[in-house]
Amino acid sequence: MWEDGLCSPNQLSDQQVPYQGETCIERALTMKGSSEHGETSKAAPLGRGVSKGVSVLDLILRFIAIIGTLASAIAMGTTNETLPFFTQFIRFKAQYSDLPTLTFFVVANSIVCVYLILSLPLSIVHIIRSRAKYSRLLLIFLDAAMLALVTAGASAAAAIVYLAHKGNVRANWLAICQQFDSFCERISGSLIGSFGAMVMLILLILLSAIALARR
Amino acid sequence: MWEDGLCSPNQLSDQQVPYQGETCIERALTMKGSSEHGETSKAAPLGRGVSKGVSVLDLILRFIAIIGTLASAIAMGTTNETLPFFTQFIRFKAQYSDLPTLTFFVVANSIVCVYLILSLPLSIVHIIRSRAKYSRLLLIFLDAAMLALVTAGASAAAAIVYLAHKGNVRANWLAICQQFDSFCERISGSLIGSFGAMVMLILLILLSAIALARR
Repeated sequence: MWEDGLCSPNQLSDQQVPYQGETCIERALTMKGSSEHGETSKAAPLGRGVSKGVSVLDLILRFIAIIGTLASAIAMGTTNETLPFFTQFIRFKAQYSDLPTLTFFVVANSIVCVYLILSLPLSIVHIIRSRAKYSRLLLIFLDAAMLALVTAGASAAAAIVYLAHKGNVRANWLAICQQFDSFCERISGSLIGSFGAMVMLILLILLSAIALARR
Repeated sequence: MWEDGLCSPNQLSDQQVPYQGETCIERALTMKGSSEHGETSKAAPLGRGVSKGVSVLDLILRFIAIIGTLASAIAMGTTNETLPFFTQFIRFKAQYSDLPTLTFFVVANSIVCVYLILSLPLSIVHIIRSRAKYSRLLLIFLDAAMLALVTAGASAAAAIVYLAHKGNVRANWLAICQQFDSFCERISGSLIGSFGAMVMLILLILLSAIALARR
Protein backbone atom coordinates (compact mmCIF):
# COMPACT_ATOMS: atom_id res chain seq x y z
CA MET A 1 0.00 0.00 0.00
CA TRP A 2 2.90 2.34 0.81
CA GLU A 3 5.02 1.32 -2.16
CA ASP A 4 5.27 4.92 -3.47
CA GLY A 5 7.17 5.82 -0.28
CA LEU A 6 5.42 9.16 0.06
CA CYS A 7 2.88 8.54 2.82
CA SER A 8 4.08 5.83 5.18
CA PRO A 9 2.42 5.02 8.53
CA ASN A 10 5.48 6.23 10.47
CA GLN A 11 5.60 9.48 8.60
CA LEU A 12 1.92 10.04 9.22
CA SER A 13 2.17 9.83 12.94
CA ASP A 14 5.74 10.82 13.85
CA GLN A 15 7.11 13.34 11.36
CA GLN A 16 6.02 16.43 9.51
CA VAL A 17 6.09 14.98 6.00
CA PRO A 18 5.54 16.74 2.70
CA TYR A 19 1.82 16.66 1.99
CA GLN A 20 0.68 14.35 -0.83
CA GLY A 21 -2.89 15.63 -1.29
CA GLU A 22 -6.31 14.26 -0.32
CA THR A 23 -5.28 10.68 -1.19
CA CYS A 24 -2.94 10.72 1.79
CA ILE A 25 -5.81 11.42 4.20
CA GLU A 26 -7.84 8.67 2.60
CA ARG A 27 -4.85 6.41 2.92
CA ALA A 28 -4.50 7.46 6.54
CA LEU A 29 -8.08 6.32 7.10
CA THR A 30 -7.50 3.06 5.23
CA MET A 31 -4.20 2.56 7.00
CA LYS A 32 -5.78 3.06 10.42
CA GLY A 33 -8.45 0.51 9.54
CA SER A 34 -6.02 -1.99 8.11
CA SER A 35 -3.58 -1.65 11.00
CA GLU A 36 -6.42 -2.49 13.40
CA HIS A 37 -7.19 -5.57 11.33
CA GLY A 38 -3.51 -6.29 11.33
CA GLU A 39 -3.42 -6.35 15.13
CA THR A 40 -6.32 -8.76 15.38
CA SER A 41 -4.90 -11.04 12.73
CA LYS A 42 -1.59 -11.08 14.60
CA ALA A 43 -3.34 -12.20 17.83
CA ALA A 44 -5.74 -14.53 15.99
CA PRO A 45 -3.54 -17.57 15.18
CA LEU A 46 -2.81 -18.26 18.88
CA GLY A 47 -6.43 -17.64 19.93
CA ARG A 48 -7.76 -19.72 17.04
CA GLY A 49 -5.38 -22.54 17.96
CA VAL A 50 -6.64 -22.59 21.55
CA SER A 51 -10.27 -22.43 20.37
CA LYS A 52 -9.61 -25.32 18.01
CA GLY A 53 -7.97 -27.24 20.86
CA VAL A 54 -11.03 -26.65 23.05
CA SER A 55 -13.31 -27.89 20.25
CA VAL A 56 -11.20 -31.00 19.68
CA LEU A 57 -11.20 -31.72 23.43
CA ASP A 58 -14.99 -31.28 23.32
CA LEU A 59 -15.20 -33.99 20.65
CA ILE A 60 -12.92 -36.36 22.60
CA LEU A 61 -14.91 -35.91 25.84
CA ARG A 62 -18.11 -36.62 23.91
CA PHE A 63 -16.64 -39.91 22.67
CA ILE A 64 -15.65 -40.89 26.22
CA ALA A 65 -19.14 -40.01 27.49
CA ILE A 66 -20.72 -42.06 24.67
CA ILE A 67 -18.62 -45.08 25.62
CA GLY A 68 -19.49 -44.58 29.31
CA THR A 69 -23.25 -44.35 28.84
CA LEU A 70 -23.32 -47.13 26.25
CA ALA A 71 -21.32 -49.47 28.48
CA SER A 72 -23.58 -48.64 31.44
CA ALA A 73 -26.77 -49.24 29.48
CA ILE A 74 -25.52 -52.54 28.03
CA ALA A 75 -24.03 -53.80 31.30
CA MET A 76 -27.24 -53.05 33.19
CA GLY A 77 -29.56 -54.11 30.39
CA THR A 78 -28.04 -57.57 29.99
CA THR A 79 -27.90 -58.32 33.72
CA ASN A 80 -29.75 -61.34 34.93
CA GLU A 81 -28.99 -64.15 37.31
CA THR A 82 -30.80 -67.42 37.79
CA LEU A 83 -30.32 -69.09 41.14
CA PRO A 84 -30.00 -72.86 41.46
CA PHE A 85 -32.32 -72.75 44.50
CA PHE A 86 -35.26 -70.75 45.75
CA THR A 87 -36.59 -69.64 49.11
CA GLN A 88 -39.96 -68.41 50.26
CA PHE A 89 -39.06 -64.77 49.53
CA ILE A 90 -36.45 -64.68 46.80
CA ARG A 91 -37.43 -65.61 43.24
CA PHE A 92 -35.43 -67.91 40.99
CA LYS A 93 -34.29 -65.20 38.68
CA ALA A 94 -33.12 -61.61 39.08
CA GLN A 95 -32.88 -59.16 36.22
CA TYR A 96 -32.67 -55.41 35.93
CA SER A 97 -36.32 -54.99 34.94
CA ASP A 98 -37.41 -56.36 38.33
CA LEU A 99 -36.49 -52.99 39.79
CA PRO A 100 -38.16 -50.03 38.00
CA THR A 101 -35.31 -47.74 39.03
CA LEU A 102 -32.80 -49.88 37.14
CA THR A 103 -35.06 -49.77 34.08
CA PHE A 104 -35.02 -45.97 34.34
CA PHE A 105 -31.21 -46.16 34.56
CA VAL A 106 -31.03 -48.09 31.27
CA VAL A 107 -33.50 -45.74 29.56
CA ALA A 108 -31.72 -42.59 30.81
CA ASN A 109 -28.31 -43.85 29.71
CA SER A 110 -29.66 -44.84 26.29
CA ILE A 111 -31.24 -41.43 25.76
CA VAL A 112 -28.04 -39.61 26.77
CA CYS A 113 -25.97 -41.92 24.56
CA VAL A 114 -28.20 -41.22 21.53
CA TYR A 115 -28.11 -37.48 22.26
CA LEU A 116 -24.31 -37.53 22.48
CA ILE A 117 -24.02 -39.38 19.17
CA LEU A 118 -26.38 -36.87 17.53
CA SER A 119 -24.33 -33.98 18.97
CA LEU A 120 -21.10 -35.26 17.35
CA PRO A 121 -21.68 -33.56 13.95
CA LEU A 122 -22.28 -30.23 15.70
CA SER A 123 -19.12 -30.75 17.72
CA ILE A 124 -17.16 -31.38 14.49
CA VAL A 125 -18.67 -28.24 12.94
CA HIS A 126 -17.36 -26.29 15.97
CA ILE A 127 -13.81 -27.47 15.26
CA ILE A 128 -14.04 -25.92 11.79
CA ARG A 129 -16.11 -22.86 12.73
CA SER A 130 -14.80 -21.93 16.16
CA ARG A 131 -16.79 -18.66 16.25
CA ALA A 132 -20.20 -20.39 16.21
CA LYS A 133 -22.48 -18.89 18.87
CA TYR A 134 -26.08 -20.11 18.80
CA SER A 135 -25.17 -23.75 18.20
CA ARG A 136 -22.89 -23.61 21.26
CA LEU A 137 -25.70 -22.10 23.34
CA LEU A 138 -27.99 -24.91 22.19
CA LEU A 139 -25.33 -27.49 23.11
CA ILE A 140 -24.81 -25.97 26.57
CA PHE A 141 -28.54 -26.10 27.29
CA LEU A 142 -28.97 -29.68 26.03
CA ASP A 143 -25.74 -30.79 27.77
CA ALA A 144 -27.08 -29.39 31.05
CA ALA A 145 -30.42 -31.17 30.56
CA MET A 146 -28.63 -34.45 29.70
CA LEU A 147 -26.33 -33.97 32.71
CA ALA A 148 -29.45 -33.82 34.88
CA LEU A 149 -30.90 -36.93 33.19
CA VAL A 150 -27.79 -39.11 33.43
CA THR A 151 -27.20 -37.97 37.05
CA ALA A 152 -30.79 -38.78 37.95
CA GLY A 153 -30.49 -42.25 36.44
CA ALA A 154 -27.11 -42.96 38.01
CA SER A 155 -27.92 -41.76 41.52
CA ALA A 156 -31.35 -43.38 41.64
CA ALA A 157 -29.75 -46.68 40.60
CA ALA A 158 -26.97 -46.10 43.16
CA ALA A 159 -29.58 -45.66 45.89
CA ILE A 160 -31.18 -48.98 44.95
CA VAL A 161 -27.82 -50.75 44.58
CA TYR A 162 -26.86 -49.47 48.02
CA LEU A 163 -30.11 -50.87 49.39
CA ALA A 164 -29.51 -54.19 47.64
CA HIS A 165 -26.08 -54.40 49.28
CA LYS A 166 -26.88 -53.12 52.76
CA GLY A 167 -30.63 -53.43 53.11
CA ASN A 168 -32.39 -51.25 55.67
CA VAL A 169 -33.21 -52.55 59.13
CA ARG A 170 -35.64 -49.77 60.02
CA ALA A 171 -37.77 -50.26 56.92
CA ASN A 172 -37.26 -54.03 57.11
CA TRP A 173 -35.79 -54.17 53.62
CA LEU A 174 -33.39 -57.09 53.50
CA ALA A 175 -30.17 -56.99 51.49
CA ILE A 176 -30.60 -59.21 48.41
CA CYS A 177 -26.91 -59.35 47.54
CA GLN A 178 -26.21 -62.40 49.67
CA GLN A 179 -28.42 -64.35 47.28
CA PHE A 180 -27.85 -62.52 44.03
CA ASP A 181 -24.12 -62.10 44.18
CA SER A 182 -23.16 -61.72 40.52
CA PHE A 183 -26.32 -59.68 39.83
CA CYS A 184 -25.27 -57.19 42.49
CA GLU A 185 -21.70 -57.00 41.21
CA ARG A 186 -22.97 -56.33 37.71
CA ILE A 187 -25.43 -53.57 38.67
CA SER A 188 -22.78 -51.94 40.89
CA GLY A 189 -20.20 -52.00 38.11
CA SER A 190 -22.55 -50.59 35.52
CA LEU A 191 -22.85 -47.38 37.56
CA ILE A 192 -19.21 -46.45 36.85
CA GLY A 193 -19.74 -45.59 33.18
CA SER A 194 -22.71 -43.44 34.05
CA PHE A 195 -20.88 -41.44 36.73
CA GLY A 196 -17.96 -41.07 34.31
CA ALA A 197 -20.33 -39.66 31.70
CA MET A 198 -21.65 -37.26 34.37
CA VAL A 199 -18.15 -35.82 34.94
CA MET A 200 -17.58 -35.61 31.16
CA LEU A 201 -20.82 -33.64 30.70
CA ILE A 202 -19.83 -31.14 33.42
CA LEU A 203 -16.50 -30.66 31.60
CA LEU A 204 -18.33 -30.36 28.25
CA ILE A 205 -20.48 -27.53 29.63
CA LEU A 206 -17.34 -25.79 30.91
CA LEU A 207 -15.57 -26.24 27.54
CA SER A 208 -18.51 -24.81 25.59
CA ALA A 209 -18.60 -21.85 28.01
CA ILE A 210 -14.85 -21.27 27.53
CA ALA A 211 -15.29 -21.42 23.75
CA LEU A 212 -18.13 -18.87 23.98
CA ALA A 213 -16.02 -16.58 26.20
CA ARG A 214 -13.02 -16.76 23.80
CA ARG A 215 -15.01 -15.91 20.69
CA MET B 1 -13.89 17.77 17.67
CA TRP B 2 -14.82 19.31 14.31
CA GLU B 3 -15.77 22.70 15.72
CA ASP B 4 -13.23 24.58 13.55
CA GLY B 5 -15.17 23.41 10.47
CA LEU B 6 -12.02 22.84 8.47
CA CYS B 7 -11.70 19.09 8.48
CA SER B 8 -15.10 17.39 8.90
CA PRO B 9 -15.68 13.64 8.46
CA ASN B 10 -17.82 14.23 5.34
CA GLN B 11 -15.21 16.42 3.77
CA LEU B 12 -12.54 13.89 4.47
CA SER B 13 -14.28 11.12 2.64
CA ASP B 14 -16.49 12.80 0.01
CA GLN B 15 -15.01 16.09 -1.15
CA GLN B 16 -11.71 17.56 -2.20
CA VAL B 17 -11.26 19.99 0.70
CA PRO B 18 -8.57 22.58 1.26
CA TYR B 19 -5.75 20.88 3.12
CA GLN B 20 -5.20 21.88 6.76
CA GLY B 21 -1.75 20.36 7.30
CA GLU B 22 -0.56 17.30 9.24
CA THR B 23 -3.12 17.87 12.01
CA CYS B 24 -5.90 16.98 9.60
CA ILE B 25 -4.37 13.58 8.92
CA GLU B 26 -3.99 13.01 12.63
CA ARG B 27 -7.59 14.06 13.08
CA ALA B 28 -8.59 11.69 10.33
CA LEU B 29 -6.93 8.90 12.28
CA THR B 30 -8.63 10.00 15.51
CA MET B 31 -11.94 10.41 13.70
CA LYS B 32 -11.74 6.95 12.22
CA GLY B 33 -11.12 5.52 15.67
CA SER B 34 -13.85 7.53 17.35
CA SER B 35 -16.44 6.74 14.66
CA GLU B 36 -15.83 3.03 15.25
CA HIS B 37 -16.39 3.59 18.94
CA GLY B 38 -19.45 5.61 18.00
CA GLU B 39 -20.96 2.62 16.15
CA THR B 40 -20.48 0.29 19.10
CA SER B 41 -21.90 2.84 21.54
CA LYS B 42 -24.96 3.22 19.31
CA ALA B 43 -25.64 -0.54 19.48
CA ALA B 44 -24.61 -0.80 23.13
CA PRO B 45 -27.67 0.61 25.03
CA LEU B 46 -30.00 -2.10 23.68
CA GLY B 47 -27.43 -4.88 24.16
CA ARG B 48 -26.53 -3.61 27.62
CA GLY B 49 -30.21 -3.52 28.56
CA VAL B 50 -30.69 -7.14 27.50
CA SER B 51 -27.48 -8.18 29.29
CA LYS B 52 -28.69 -6.42 32.43
CA GLY B 53 -32.06 -8.16 32.08
CA VAL B 54 -30.32 -11.54 31.80
CA SER B 55 -28.26 -10.76 34.92
CA VAL B 56 -31.33 -9.69 36.90
CA LEU B 57 -33.16 -12.86 35.81
CA ASP B 58 -30.09 -14.81 36.96
CA LEU B 59 -30.41 -13.23 40.41
CA ILE B 60 -34.18 -13.97 40.59
CA LEU B 61 -33.69 -17.63 39.56
CA ARG B 62 -30.99 -17.97 42.22
CA PHE B 63 -33.44 -16.74 44.86
CA ILE B 64 -36.07 -19.25 43.70
CA ALA B 65 -33.51 -22.06 43.76
CA ILE B 66 -32.39 -21.02 47.28
CA ILE B 67 -35.99 -21.16 48.51
CA GLY B 68 -36.50 -24.55 46.80
CA THR B 69 -33.42 -26.23 48.25
CA LEU B 70 -33.92 -24.67 51.69
CA ALA B 71 -37.56 -25.80 51.82
CA SER B 72 -36.57 -29.31 50.70
CA ALA B 73 -33.80 -29.60 53.28
CA ILE B 74 -36.01 -28.32 56.11
CA ALA B 75 -39.06 -30.36 55.11
CA MET B 76 -37.00 -33.55 54.88
CA GLY B 77 -34.82 -32.76 57.90
CA THR B 78 -37.73 -32.23 60.27
CA THR B 79 -39.67 -35.30 59.17
CA ASN B 80 -40.47 -37.87 61.79
CA GLU B 81 -43.53 -39.86 62.71
CA THR B 82 -44.21 -41.86 65.84
CA LEU B 83 -46.78 -44.58 65.52
CA PRO B 84 -49.25 -45.32 68.32
CA PHE B 85 -48.67 -49.06 67.79
CA PHE B 86 -45.87 -51.38 66.71
CA THR B 87 -45.58 -54.65 64.83
CA GLN B 88 -42.86 -57.24 64.59
CA PHE B 89 -41.17 -55.49 61.66
CA ILE B 90 -42.00 -51.81 61.79
CA ARG B 91 -40.44 -49.61 64.47
CA PHE B 92 -42.33 -47.11 66.58
CA LYS B 93 -40.74 -44.10 64.98
CA ALA B 94 -39.76 -43.14 61.45
CA GLN B 95 -37.45 -40.25 60.65
CA TYR B 96 -35.40 -39.23 57.63
CA SER B 97 -32.10 -40.41 59.16
CA ASP B 98 -33.36 -44.01 59.18
CA LEU B 99 -32.71 -44.05 55.45
CA PRO B 100 -29.13 -43.00 54.49
CA THR B 101 -30.35 -41.82 51.07
CA LEU B 102 -32.66 -39.29 52.69
CA THR B 103 -29.76 -38.05 54.83
CA PHE B 104 -27.78 -37.56 51.60
CA PHE B 105 -30.76 -35.64 50.21
CA VAL B 106 -30.71 -33.23 53.17
CA VAL B 107 -26.92 -32.78 52.97
CA ALA B 108 -26.95 -32.24 49.18
CA ASN B 109 -29.74 -29.68 49.40
CA SER B 110 -28.00 -27.85 52.24
CA ILE B 111 -24.72 -27.66 50.30
CA VAL B 112 -26.45 -26.38 47.15
CA CYS B 113 -28.42 -23.86 49.22
CA VAL B 114 -25.24 -22.51 50.86
CA TYR B 115 -23.49 -22.38 47.46
CA LEU B 116 -26.40 -20.44 45.94
CA ILE B 117 -26.37 -17.93 48.82
CA LEU B 118 -22.60 -17.47 48.40
CA SER B 119 -23.05 -16.97 44.63
CA LEU B 120 -25.53 -14.10 45.14
CA PRO B 121 -22.85 -11.35 45.51
CA LEU B 122 -21.21 -12.50 42.26
CA SER B 123 -24.61 -12.46 40.56
CA ILE B 124 -25.16 -8.86 41.77
CA VAL B 125 -21.69 -7.89 40.48
CA HIS B 126 -22.74 -9.28 37.06
CA ILE B 127 -25.75 -6.92 36.97
CA ILE B 128 -23.38 -3.96 37.37
CA ARG B 129 -20.51 -5.31 35.25
CA SER B 130 -22.26 -7.19 32.47
CA ARG B 131 -19.00 -7.78 30.55
CA ALA B 132 -17.45 -9.97 33.27
CA LYS B 133 -15.96 -13.13 31.75
CA TYR B 134 -13.95 -15.30 34.15
CA SER B 135 -16.42 -14.95 37.02
CA ARG B 136 -19.19 -16.14 34.68
CA LEU B 137 -17.08 -19.12 33.59
CA LEU B 138 -16.53 -19.98 37.26
CA LEU B 139 -20.27 -19.71 37.93
CA ILE B 140 -21.14 -21.94 34.95
CA PHE B 141 -18.73 -24.64 36.16
CA LEU B 142 -19.94 -24.49 39.78
CA ASP B 143 -23.59 -24.31 38.69
CA ALA B 144 -23.09 -27.46 36.60
CA ALA B 145 -21.45 -29.25 39.55
CA MET B 146 -24.26 -28.15 41.89
CA LEU B 147 -26.84 -29.22 39.30
CA ALA B 148 -25.30 -32.70 39.41
CA LEU B 149 -25.30 -32.69 43.22
CA VAL B 150 -28.91 -31.55 43.68
CA THR B 151 -30.10 -33.94 40.94
CA ALA B 152 -28.24 -36.81 42.57
CA GLY B 153 -29.84 -36.05 45.94
CA ALA B 154 -33.32 -35.57 44.53
CA SER B 155 -33.39 -38.64 42.29
CA ALA B 156 -31.81 -40.95 44.88
CA ALA B 157 -34.44 -39.80 47.38
CA ALA B 158 -37.13 -40.21 44.73
CA ALA B 159 -36.02 -43.82 44.14
CA ILE B 160 -36.35 -44.54 47.87
CA VAL B 161 -39.67 -42.69 48.16
CA TYR B 162 -40.99 -44.71 45.23
CA LEU B 163 -39.90 -47.87 46.99
CA ALA B 164 -41.53 -46.73 50.24
CA HIS B 165 -44.79 -46.17 48.37
CA LYS B 166 -44.83 -49.20 46.10
CA GLY B 167 -42.37 -51.64 47.60
CA ASN B 168 -40.86 -54.31 45.38
CA VAL B 169 -42.32 -57.79 45.22
CA ARG B 170 -39.30 -59.36 43.48
CA ALA B 171 -36.81 -58.13 46.09
CA ASN B 172 -39.37 -58.69 48.86
CA TRP B 173 -39.19 -55.07 49.96
CA LEU B 174 -42.56 -54.15 51.45
CA ALA B 175 -44.11 -50.72 51.04
CA ILE B 176 -43.85 -48.86 54.35
CA CYS B 177 -46.28 -46.11 53.45
CA GLN B 178 -49.34 -47.99 54.70
CA GLN B 179 -47.90 -47.66 58.19
CA PHE B 180 -46.04 -44.38 57.96
CA ASP B 181 -48.61 -42.34 56.11
CA SER B 182 -47.70 -38.78 57.08
CA PHE B 183 -43.96 -39.62 56.95
CA CYS B 184 -44.36 -40.73 53.33
CA GLU B 185 -46.38 -37.68 52.40
CA ARG B 186 -43.72 -35.43 53.90
CA ILE B 187 -40.75 -37.06 52.18
CA SER B 188 -42.62 -37.09 48.85
CA GLY B 189 -43.50 -33.41 49.17
CA SER B 190 -39.98 -32.38 50.08
CA LEU B 191 -38.75 -33.62 46.67
CA ILE B 192 -40.64 -30.85 44.86
CA GLY B 193 -38.37 -28.02 45.98
CA SER B 194 -35.31 -29.99 44.99
CA PHE B 195 -36.57 -30.77 41.49
CA GLY B 196 -37.59 -27.13 41.14
CA ALA B 197 -34.04 -26.07 42.06
CA MET B 198 -32.76 -28.54 39.43
CA VAL B 199 -34.75 -26.79 36.67
CA MET B 200 -33.60 -23.38 37.96
CA LEU B 201 -29.94 -24.46 37.81
CA ILE B 202 -30.31 -25.66 34.19
CA LEU B 203 -31.80 -22.25 33.33
CA LEU B 204 -29.00 -20.49 35.29
CA ILE B 205 -26.37 -22.30 33.19
CA LEU B 206 -28.20 -21.26 30.01
CA LEU B 207 -28.48 -17.63 31.20
CA SER B 208 -24.76 -17.44 32.03
CA ALA B 209 -23.96 -18.89 28.60
CA ILE B 210 -26.23 -16.33 26.91
CA ALA B 211 -24.53 -13.54 28.88
CA LEU B 212 -21.11 -14.85 27.78
CA ALA B 213 -22.24 -15.05 24.13
CA ARG B 214 -23.64 -11.49 24.20
CA ARG B 215 -20.52 -9.89 25.67
